[in-house]
Amino acid sequence: MDSIKIVAEIKLKPEYRQELFPVLQALVEGSLTETGNNVYDLTENMSLPGHFFVIEEWKSDKAIEEHNETPHFKAFVTAIDVKGVALSITKPKSLF
Amino acid sequence: MDSIKIVAEIKLKPEYRQELFPVLQALVEGSLTETGNNVYDLTENMSLPGHFFVIEEWKSDKAIEEHNETPHFKAFVTAIDVKGVALSITKPKSLF
Repeated sequence: MDSIKIVAEIKLKPEYRQELFPVLQALVEGSLTETGNNVYDLTENMSLPGHFFVIEEWKSDKAIEEHNETPHFKAFVTAIDVKGVALSITKPKSLF
Repeated sequence: MDSIKIVAEIKLKPEYRQELFPVLQALVEGSLTETGNNVYDLTENMSLPGHFFVIEEWKSDKAIEEHNETPHFKAFVTAIDVKGVALSITKPKSLF
């Protein structure tokens, strides 16, 4: 079965970047240890600090559900909620 | 040297999707043949037809410049210009 892709876009006010960096790092490190994960690549727009794309690939929908229940993901969601950060999550499918 | 990533977001009115599909297909097929390309993954948001993310990886900035001069890329840019399609290109860097 094809892995399931996620493109998450995070728009963080630059002044929060330093403070939230450890939560982002814990999110990446924790996600990469999950058995259901294939790719978890946190990238930052070099011309706009605080603008991130997370390129993800998961083995199944169940793996994504499990991810959403992990401490590192929940800590991330709580942290960005408090800061009013924009997060958009798309589950796109490869066309070719 | 790390490959250079690009996340391109294309927002196409759904009514143009069918008409522009061949141009998108030629863009992907052409880009994958370019020696400077590592990844060229055109993905579509399953809940919003016409909303695409292209996940790209290139060997160098020079490879990207050459890509921008190819017939398949120029045909794509012309086609979306005519349709007033929103295209945003980000060159993000992996953080970890």
